[in-house]
Amino acid sequence: MNSGVKKSLLPQGLRDLLPPEAIHEASVMDGLLEAFSIHGYERVEPPLVEFEENLLDGAGEAMAPHTFRLMDPVSQRMMGVRADMTPQVARIATSRLAAMERPLRLFYGGQVLRVKGSQLRPERQVAQAGVELIGADSPEADAEVIALAYEALQTLGVENLSVDISLPTIVRAICDDLGLDRDAKEDVRSALDRKDAAAIAAMAGPVAGIFGGLLQASGLADKAIAALNELTLPEAAAAERDRLILVVERLSDMALGLMVTVDPVEHRGFEYQTGLSFTLFDRDVRGELGRGGRYLAGAADEAATGFSLYMDTVLRAVPKRERRSRLYLPHGTDLDIARRERTAGWITVSGLAPEKDVLTEAARLRCSHVLTLDGIVAVEKE
Amino acid sequence: MNSGVKKSLLPQGLRDLLPPEAIHEASVMDGLLEAFSIHGYERVEPPLVEFEENLLDGAGEAMAPHTFRLMDPVSQRMMGVRADMTPQVARIATSRLAAMERPLRLFYGGQVLRVKGSQLRPERQVAQAGVELIGADSPEADAEVIALAYEALQTLGVENLSVDISLPTIVRAICDDLGLDRDAKEDVRSALDRKDAAAIAAMAGPVAGIFGGLLQASGLADKAIAALNELTLPEAAAAERDRLILVVERLSDMALGLMVTVDPVEHRGFEYQTGLSFTLFDRDVRGELGRGGRYLAGAADEAATGFSLYMDTVLRAVPKRERRSRLYLPHGTDLDIARRERTAGWITVSGLAPEKDVLTEAARLRCSHVLTLDGIVAVEKE
Repeated sequence: MNSGVKKSLLPQGLRDLLPPEAIHEASVMDGLLEAFSIHGYERVEPPLVEFEENLLDGAGEAMAPHTFRLMDPVSQRMMGVRADMTPQVARIATSRLAAMERPLRLFYGGQVLRVKGSQLRPERQVAQAGVELIGADSPEADAEVIALAYEALQTLGVENLSVDISLPTIVRAICDDLGLDRDAKEDVRSALDRKDAAAIAAMAGPVAGIFGGLLQASGLADKAIAALNELTLPEAAAAERDRLILVVERLSDMALGLMVTVDPVEHRGFEYQTGLSFTLFDRDVRGELGRGGRYLAGAADEAATGFSLYMDTVLRAVPKRERRSRLYLPHGTDLDIARRERTAGWITVSGLAPEKDVLTEAARLRCSHVLTLDGIVAVEKE
Repeated sequence: MNSGVKKSLLPQGLRDLLPPEAIHEASVMDGLLEAFSIHGYERVEPPLVEFEENLLDGAGEAMAPHTFRLMDPVSQRMMGVRADMTPQVARIATSRLAAMERPLRLFYGGQVLRVKGSQLRPERQVAQAGVELIGADSPEADAEVIALAYEALQTLGVENLSVDISLPTIVRAICDDLGLDRDAKEDVRSALDRKDAAAIAAMAGPVAGIFGGLLQASGLADKAIAALNELTLPEAAAAERDRLILVVERLSDMALGLMVTVDPVEHRGFEYQTGLSFTLFDRDVRGELGRGGRYLAGAADEAATGFSLYMDTVLRAVPKRERRSRLYLPHGTDLDIARRERTAGWITVSGLAPEKDVLTEAARLRCSHVLTLDGIVAVEKE
């Protein structure tokens, strides 16, 4: 291994984006952010690092083991490098923008850094983009953010989108209502996580009926909702179920072509969610495109929902766009003409010195066309 | 101070960008990167952190005191958070893209982080954007990057641009040619940095004549170049002078309206530059917009030039653009109509519930217009 190669090695999970991938990722990100913007969401941009105690407070707590720490030489306090922008945006919404009218619609896009990659996400630096809808508690708000994720991804050419909707707090609500003790709760949770219908059926009292019914009520939305409607649930759980049904109904109007599935008992990865939550998939792409759901923002526990999309998986789902063609401008090309060709949509590449064979030079610099006295000429493919 | 306010405090020199500043900064960045792209430069995106020894190698060495360090738990090696993207792009150009044809034109845009702010730049996180032109040593290449910086900034509406061109290595070249000892060199350097013509004039031998002449040859390009042409310089210094003159002449063709000034002996802030360098200003804005110049890239000392722009100062120079108007869509608005209005250029804000007084609701949510059955109606200003 020579030293030139060795020097270019990056830490595991970190990478250089090169042409043309770098411009592709940037244009996908721009497309998402533009979609959020034209739906009335407004951009905020928190810093890459902030005080650890703020970054890892509340909703941010789950990211503590994934967060790099830095000592701030100015304040002598510990800072964290953000591993997730959601807690930062919630902080902004509930502090600096506390006086703004609700609902408050915010979006963000930026890089996050994690101490270690996971099997599903080996990258330690990922671009994250998302929205937060703060101060709206209605099913309409839930449907708006899901439909927005759908529309934003669809605009980029992502097909075969599906959303899996869950109620990560419904199991706890039912357990509490049934007065189950801690061991019994853990048994229920574990059996549901394993989708172990036999273990649930063997449980005593109303547990088997309710949780068995919930476990059955999953899959494609129509079938799952019919099953959910059959269930007799305690009050708090029934309210969650009814919200899910309203949201699914609204989505069938708002997001034509979005496949909706339901998995009411799923809760993993929704540790800080407090109600209806969802995961976005492209059915042809490994891994989830993003996820979101209800949470309580800030010290005043303001009703909020939102989602995050991660560029590593989103990029696998977005078709590459045709790039603009490169036009070689021989040395001495009139600058007004050069400007005109750029305005007409060309990428121009200027010759820095006169060349005898401009076609060869253009091909060497990966230009598809050359500007000549006779107009624009295609470079022959070799 | 209540705890809500206290929690929102960020470390000194770091800040949240809020609406509408966040979208303004992003659109200015996008405008710069688009200008670089249509001039044939291709995007690269290095990671936020990399191994310290690579990040601070060569051209990166000057940033060592400004760079945050992190321990990588995977490799157990130290990493640095980038304080400047230029060394990263030079690394990419000379390692991963070593086999690509020259000249290689690359651009980048991203956030950099610094341990402490300075008096001129109190921000510790700044967005940086720039280009590198690798493998071209001609004055034409110098002129191309300066003219590109000018055109990119002009596209954004920056007026009153000026560039100050200097030759940070010419003083050393002359001192070496004259065989000055270390003390004499330091005396010359110190007098030139103070622009102390009297001290230079008092020096012995040819020193007074040459450096006195260089010190005089500064200011507006026409006058400075006339003075430079009068000077009798040793060979290496004469070559640098001749290049400067060629670049200024080329710029007078390429960048009509760019004010060019010359300060041949300026070298501060150009510690890793190896030839013609420049600083960009808006004459109405405090601080420099960016800077650049010649350097040697990679272990093979490849000829390179480029520039970096910093968003904190660039934003002070760019006029705010008119933002798109916000159109309130009452609850229940047909989704195809909503889509049509967005396509027509509106930002739409959807009502999440029916409202009796849609005009008041629209105004509350900072919409300028409402969609009604009679079409789009302006919200009266209060």
